[in-house]
Amino acid sequence: MTDNAVVSRTPLTVLGTGDMGTALARAWLAAGHPVTVWNRTASRAEPLAAEGATVARTAAQAVAANRLVVVCLLDDASVGEALDGAALAGRDLVNLTTGTPGEGRSRAAWAEARGARFLDGGIMAVPPMIGAPESGGYVFYSGSPELFEEHRDTLAVPAGTRYVGADPGFAALHDVALLSAMSGMFAGVTHAFALIRPEDIAPKDFAPLLVDWLTAMAPAVHQTADQLQSGDYTRNVVSNLAMQVAGNATLLRTAGEQRVSPDLLTPYMALMERRLAQGRGDEDGTGIIELLDLRAGAS
Amino acid sequence: MTDNAVVSRTPLTVLGTGDMGTALARAWLAAGHPVTVWNRTASRAEPLAAEGATVARTAAQAVAANRLVVVCLLDDASVGEALDGAALAGRDLVNLTTGTPGEGRSRAAWAEARGARFLDGGIMAVPPMIGAPESGGYVFYSGSPELFEEHRDTLAVPAGTRYVGADPGFAALHDVALLSAMSGMFAGVTHAFALIRPEDIAPKDFAPLLVDWLTAMAPAVHQTADQLQSGDYTRNVVSNLAMQVAGNATLLRTAGEQRVSPDLLTPYMALMERRLAQGRGDEDGTGIIELLDLRAGAS
Ligand SMILES: NC(=O)c1ccc[n+]([C@@H]2O[C@H](COP(=O)([O-])OP(=O)(O)OC[C@H]3O[C@@H](n4cnc5c(N)ncnc54)[C@H](OP(=O)(O)O)[C@@H]3O)[C@@H](O)[C@H]2O)c1
Ligand SMILES: NC(=O)c1ccc[n+]([C@@H]2O[C@H](COP(=O)([O-])OP(=O)(O)OC[C@H]3O[C@@H](n4cnc5c(N)ncnc54)[C@H](OP(=O)(O)O)[C@@H]3O)[C@@H](O)[C@H]2O)c1
Repeated sequence: MTDNAVVSRTPLTVLGTGDMGTALARAWLAAGHPVTVWNRTASRAEPLAAEGATVARTAAQAVAANRLVVVCLLDDASVGEALDGAALAGRDLVNLTTGTPGEGRSRAAWAEARGARFLDGGIMAVPPMIGAPESGGYVFYSGSPELFEEHRDTLAVPAGTRYVGADPGFAALHDVALLSAMSGMFAGVTHAFALIRPEDIAPKDFAPLLVDWLTAMAPAVHQTADQLQSGDYTRNVVSNLAMQVAGNATLLRTAGEQRVSPDLLTPYMALMERRLAQGRGDEDGTGIIELLDLRAGAS
Repeated sequence: MTDNAVVSRTPLTVLGTGDMGTALARAWLAAGHPVTVWNRTASRAEPLAAEGATVARTAAQAVAANRLVVVCLLDDASVGEALDGAALAGRDLVNLTTGTPGEGRSRAAWAEARGARFLDGGIMAVPPMIGAPESGGYVFYSGSPELFEEHRDTLAVPAGTRYVGADPGFAALHDVALLSAMSGMFAGVTHAFALIRPEDIAPKDFAPLLVDWLTAMAPAVHQTADQLQSGDYTRNVVSNLAMQVAGNATLLRTAGEQRVSPDLLTPYMALMERRLAQGRGDEDGTGIIELLDLRAGAS
């Protein structure tokens, strides 16, 4: 540990002391940063006072207290409400409230119009991972590169940082893209557990097989990226769509035998069949991205 | 290398020299096993003759040549056709043809009725991974434990082995369950790439983030197994269903902004909402398994 009396740590404000805001504020307090907090329901900020935080009575006062202002509220609408009367000129606003790319972009324009620099963040962690670097949790940041550079060390206190570009929508986009992929993985995992459920197979014995398999197969993502980058979806295909569609029939018959609803599998299979019917049997799954694309001109 | 002249390796027959059967036969030949092969289309077996295999004219002759008979054909129906006239009494039949658990069980009964011991297998590898232990490919086996014990070393030549029980349906069940989970993961990955596609984000820069995230999140499977084992789906919940359903709205709004079809995400989200509506907001995703269960009496 370095000596707190010698190294002076950037003071900052945290708006919102729900589960996540509290974890963030606590990590900065533990690292010796002077922290001012505000929460709509004041009682929820009290525990942090005992840990050394200054509790502001209003959001405007909390914003006035420090140049660096971290916001972690429920959603984008609550950010607008909370900051309604606050003087933002000259502030560095870091918004860790989950939102869409579009919300990140319009909130950035809103902040800049009020004279603040703006950084949007997407938190890839749950509260117990905050302030625990070994947990691997991190935060995507996008928006003002100057703000990020200036506060890089302070921002790195609660969790790892990954700056993904000046476009203030990119942090949310990366966040949501990873969560969407995870949602698919957990849907597949749920189906897998449902299949073994009627049998005398212990979930605890099956789990390590599943984890090892998903971990071994995840790097196939690099192959997808390579095909997307080149535009050639037939490049280095190991298991072509025609084979995969045949294999899907076995997956569906097994779901039928085990009396498991196929609902979590069928949309992806239907897209595979559509792509195959377009004469793309020599691709693997990458070309399916074309069928998800609803932009004008896309197939 | 040990001396082939001293250590005599189990001779065996491989029925089917398609992509996978060829890879298997090649691995055994390379390890010094005498191999007899047969393929419906004879020309497809010729290359293996040059590598030392004996090519049988009929499946019945190939079966007669060795006690250990490995079958790797297109599907279960082709196994029945190919072995129609063969004398199976006293044979050790190892069926590596992909099928359902039910097909594994009925094929086992069929083989036993003809006096053969039977082992079903599910290959968790593609042909380039066969004979390459470092690839991590392996084969699930289930059925006769005596057959497996006796031929364990021979079976371990082309790929790692995992014996999952005497029920001859279990190899296929494990195989299909893992493939189903992988299908979900790849569906999610496809959606994620579709989200970033309209932006100036290189797929190659995004891929490592995706791989790291999926790899970091896969071990949540152990938590699911623990809840299933205990029957308590509220145990150690980190992110409850009420929060997840709120988060799903952000995923859907983002898909809308990016003009990406939500079809790959919506079935899982719909099940989350149904479970939440059943008053299960304090669970995480595990309880959704109940909604997939179509057995009588299940909810
Ligand atoms: N928890 C996680 O696992 C996690 C993970 C990644 C990202 N996040 C994100 O972090 C953010 C906060 O999540 P959380 O877990 O801390 O949620 P939480 O415990 O439910 O806290 C929500 C916070 O938002 C405040 N709030 C809601 N509506 C408001 C309004 N109209 N005006 C002012 N304040 C308002 C609440 O104040 P009151 O106390 O007065 O209600 C509270 O401080 C969310 O965007 C969430 O998506 C959370
Ligand atoms: N390739 C993979 O990545 C992979 C991975 C895991 C599991 N598997 C499984 O391995 C098995 C074989 O796959 P493969 O990749 O080798 O397929 P393949 O290259 O298409 O070969 C299919 C084989 O089945 C034979 N066959 C088809 N119908 C037949 C019939 N009615 N009677 C006799 N023989 C028949 C074919 O003979 P002909 O040459 O005369 O047509 C050929 O030997 C399949 O069950 C597959 O699911 C494959």
